[in-house]
Amino acid sequence: MTTLPNPQDLTRSKLAQTSAGVHALVRQRWSPRSFSSREVHPDDLKLMLDAARWAASCFNEQPWRFIVGANPRTATYKKLLECLVEANRQWAKAAPVLMLTLGKRTFTHNAKPNHYGLHDAGLALAGVMLQATSMGIFVHGMGGFEHEKARTAFAIPDDYEMGAAVAIGYLGDLSGLTGKTLDQELAPRTRKPLEEIAFEDSFGQALAL
Amino acid sequence: MTTLPNPQDLTRSKLAQTSAGVHALVRQRWSPRSFSSREVHPDDLKLMLDAARWAASCFNEQPWRFIVGANPRTATYKKLLECLVEANRQWAKAAPVLMLTLGKRTFTHNAKPNHYGLHDAGLALAGVMLQATSMGIFVHGMGGFEHEKARTAFAIPDDYEMGAAVAIGYLGDLSGLTGKTLDQELAPRTRKPLEEIAFEDSFGQALAL
Repeated sequence: MTTLPNPQDLTRSKLAQTSAGVHALVRQRWSPRSFSSREVHPDDLKLMLDAARWAASCFNEQPWRFIVGANPRTATYKKLLECLVEANRQWAKAAPVLMLTLGKRTFTHNAKPNHYGLHDAGLALAGVMLQATSMGIFVHGMGGFEHEKARTAFAIPDDYEMGAAVAIGYLGDLSGLTGKTLDQELAPRTRKPLEEIAFEDSFGQALAL
Repeated sequence: MTTLPNPQDLTRSKLAQTSAGVHALVRQRWSPRSFSSREVHPDDLKLMLDAARWAASCFNEQPWRFIVGANPRTATYKKLLECLVEANRQWAKAAPVLMLTLGKRTFTHNAKPNHYGLHDAGLALAGVMLQATSMGIFVHGMGGFEHEKARTAFAIPDDYEMGAAVAIGYLGDLSGLTGKTLDQELAPRTRKPLEEIAFEDSFGQALAL
């Protein structure tokens, strides 16, 4: 039987292979499936949400909203867990915090559609991630949940679009993971090369820097 | 005539009024309209894009794309400037880098709609912001540009949604700003209180932490 890496070794192997000079908080952030049962202190959760609050948004609309299950004993946590697809629930149930992000579809000042509702919810989630990473806490965003079930469960108005389900907690050991989930956890991280995502002159034309 | 604050004083007055404990990179980030003509080194721009590359995305799709005008002499910069609405062009023309972000509408692995294209483009833009802030560089995202004009100008395929126009550079003095733009630059930063954005049990029910 193969020996599983411990959380420290896993963290090391998951460091983003960035150019030298990219900030440590970028290099250290990744989305684990192996969470410890250690709870996240409410004060720390508050810092993450405060970091989200100060994100940029179009017209300073602040279209982000968060539905937060601050610990596994809350009704919110239980309902969020129920909304996840099975493959996510399997590992996310170990995370001590579950959250759902939303993006407002319209501007409050004129009721017109806001193209940036979800975009800016993404910026705010990045604030949660930055703050969490700086405190040794990990954040895993998920699209795999039943959007309409969540809407009903939390009486979410139509004016708010579903963002991401989010698992938050400390890294745990890998013994709770099996099969494909374990394979994903151990797999090297990959990203497209810069020339496939950064262009100049016209779309698809690699940026020369 | 009122004396305008210098960039250092402005930066101080723009510090986010977060709880103690929120990371300095969150506190220090804001979206200025007063840019210096000092150019951003291509290596630094590359670090920002590399930080973006390592963002999280749904199914690791990496739906973000960037069209980058790395300095004011490039055709890309000039075209991007032309696409901005006048109110933004007025101040953004001083920024040495202009960029446009895009989000892919479909998953590459199965061609199905990706609900998270723009959301994840927001996460990637947050990576640009984090890296920039850590290097003393400022980033200002804008929704105010002619989306269809930009699509044509850069031959952007329909499968990509318009994200944000982005101005990047060092802080300059305020002497180039007038009227409403100057007022906006001097205005205190504001955010909704946490109880208006973080809920539990059901939408609108303030989270108790």
